[in-house]
Amino acid sequence: MTILDGKKLSNQIKEEIAAEVASIKERGEKVPHLAAVLVGNDGASLTYVGSKVRSCERIGFKSTLKHLPEETTEDELLTVVSQLNDDPDIDGYIVQLPLPKHIDEEKVLLAVHPDKDVDGFHPANFGKMALDMETFIPATPYGIMEMLRRYEVETEGKHAVVIGRSHIVGRPISILLSRKGKPGNATVTLCHSRTKDIKAITREADIIVSALGIPHFLKADMVKDGAVIIDVGITRVPDPGRERGYYITGDVDFKAVSQKASYITPVPGGVGPMTIAMLLKNTLLARERHSGR
Amino acid sequence: MTILDGKKLSNQIKEEIAAEVASIKERGEKVPHLAAVLVGNDGASLTYVGSKVRSCERIGFKSTLKHLPEETTEDELLTVVSQLNDDPDIDGYIVQLPLPKHIDEEKVLLAVHPDKDVDGFHPANFGKMALDMETFIPATPYGIMEMLRRYEVETEGKHAVVIGRSHIVGRPISILLSRKGKPGNATVTLCHSRTKDIKAITREADIIVSALGIPHFLKADMVKDGAVIIDVGITRVPDPGRERGYYITGDVDFKAVSQKASYITPVPGGVGPMTIAMLLKNTLLARERHSGR
Repeated sequence: MTILDGKKLSNQIKEEIAAEVASIKERGEKVPHLAAVLVGNDGASLTYVGSKVRSCERIGFKSTLKHLPEETTEDELLTVVSQLNDDPDIDGYIVQLPLPKHIDEEKVLLAVHPDKDVDGFHPANFGKMALDMETFIPATPYGIMEMLRRYEVETEGKHAVVIGRSHIVGRPISILLSRKGKPGNATVTLCHSRTKDIKAITREADIIVSALGIPHFLKADMVKDGAVIIDVGITRVPDPGRERGYYITGDVDFKAVSQKASYITPVPGGVGPMTIAMLLKNTLLARERHSGR
Repeated sequence: MTILDGKKLSNQIKEEIAAEVASIKERGEKVPHLAAVLVGNDGASLTYVGSKVRSCERIGFKSTLKHLPEETTEDELLTVVSQLNDDPDIDGYIVQLPLPKHIDEEKVLLAVHPDKDVDGFHPANFGKMALDMETFIPATPYGIMEMLRRYEVETEGKHAVVIGRSHIVGRPISILLSRKGKPGNATVTLCHSRTKDIKAITREADIIVSALGIPHFLKADMVKDGAVIIDVGITRVPDPGRERGYYITGDVDFKAVSQKASYITPVPGGVGPMTIAMLLKNTLLARERHSGR
C-alpha cells in the first residue's frame, strides 16, 4: 500500500514554481500576483485564505488579500471584482466561498473575468474543461489529477467511482477522469445523494474519489482489494480535548480501508495541500497567458 | 414494452411551438428567426440542414440558410459568423458540423455569440449546463430529456449507462441525467472506447443511452429485462437495393433488444426528430431572451 503524500508532493510542486519565479525575477519580469477576496469571518475560510496567502509569499508570488466585512453588499463586492478584473498587475484572483447568504454567489462568479478565474469556477472555463479545451482546471480536481500523474497511477480503462456531484469537486473530477488523456480514459460512475445501494457500486471500483463531507462514510466492506482511494472530505469534528477545539477527518475510514487499498490519500496531508499548490500553478499559468497578450 | 415515439412527440412539440408563433404574430411581434450556416456539400449535412429549414417554415419561424462553398476560408466563415452575431433580426443560428478540414472548428464555435448559440455548443453555455444554470441545452440530449419527461420515465435513483463521450451527445447527456431535477438524479456511468468489459456494465443498467454510431452494437445479451433503451446512433448503411442507396440504422439490435426493454426508441423516428424539435424550442427561447434585453 502506498500513501499518496499530498504534503510532500505539494511541496515539490511549490519548489518547482518557486524556481520558476526566481528565473522570472532574474529576467527582470513581473512576478505572478494572486489576489483573494474574503467576505466575513467564517473560521474555515479564514484558515484557507490565510494558507493561500502564506504559500504565495513563500514561493515569491505577490499576493493581495481583500478582506471585506460580513455586511458587504452584493454591489460593493461586484465593484471589488470589477476593480480586480481591470487591475493589470493582478494575474488571477479567487473569491473565497461560501459568501454570506445575502449575496448571489452565481452572480459574483459570473462577474469574474474568465482570464483571471484561477479557481476555474466560471462557466466559460468549466465548459472548456468539459469540451477538452485549454483552460484553468479547478484546483481540487486538478490536484487529484496531478497526484495520479506523478505517482503514475494507471487510470485508463479502470472503473472510477466518484461520490458527490458538487460543482467544485465531484462534477469536474468525474469529467476529468473520463476525458481522453493520461491520467484519464477511465470509465466513470458518478454517485450522489439519490444513488441507491452505493456499496454495490463502490465494491466494483478500481478507483474511488469520495467528496461527500461525511466523516468515515467509506468503510472497508465498501472497497475491493487493491482499490485506489482518494479522500476529498475535510470535516472539522468538535473535540474539546484539543487546543483548537476540533480535529480534521476525511470521508474514509482510513485505518480499515488502508489495509485493502493499493494507494490511499491521508486526511489531512492528502488532497488538501495539493489544492493550494494547483491554485498557485493556475496563477503562474494566468501570468504566462497575460504576458502573451 | 412502450415505443418512445420521437416522431409523434416531436410533432406535438412543433404544434405547441407553432401555436406560440401564431400568438406572437397576433400580437404583432417579431417571429423567431433561425439561421443555419452550411459549408460544403456533405450529404448528411445537406439532409439535416434542409430538414431544419423546412421545419422552421412549417411552424412559422423565419429561416435563413447561408450555404457557403467547400473552399470557404476560415476568415470568410468567421466574417459570416460575426455578421450573424450583429444582425438584430437573427435570434439564433447554428453552424452545421463537421466543417471542412482546413477550418478550425473550435475557433468557429468560440466565435458564435453565446446568446445566439441555440446548439448549446459554446463552452460558456456548456459550462452553465454543467453548473446547473439556465442556458441552451444541446438539442440531442435536450430531446432525450424531453422524451423521458413526457413519457414519465422514472430516472431518479436509476443506474443510467451512457455509451460514448462525444461533446454533442455522450458528455452532455451524462451530465443532464445526473443533475438534480426531473428527469435527472440518476447514477450515471459514462463508457467509451477505452472501457473494459462494457457488457458487464450495460447488463446492470436501468437506462442505456447508446451514442456510438456502430450499427447493432447493443445486443440483447447486453441488456437486462425491463431496461429503458435510448438509441442515438444514426448510421447510413449502403444498400444498392434502395432508391437512395442506403438505409438508416441505430446502435441497437432493435428486434432482439425490444423484447427485453420496458421503453425503447426506434431508429429512425426516435431521438432524431426530437433533436430538430428541441433546436426550434431553443430558438423560441432565444427570441424570448432577446426581446427581454
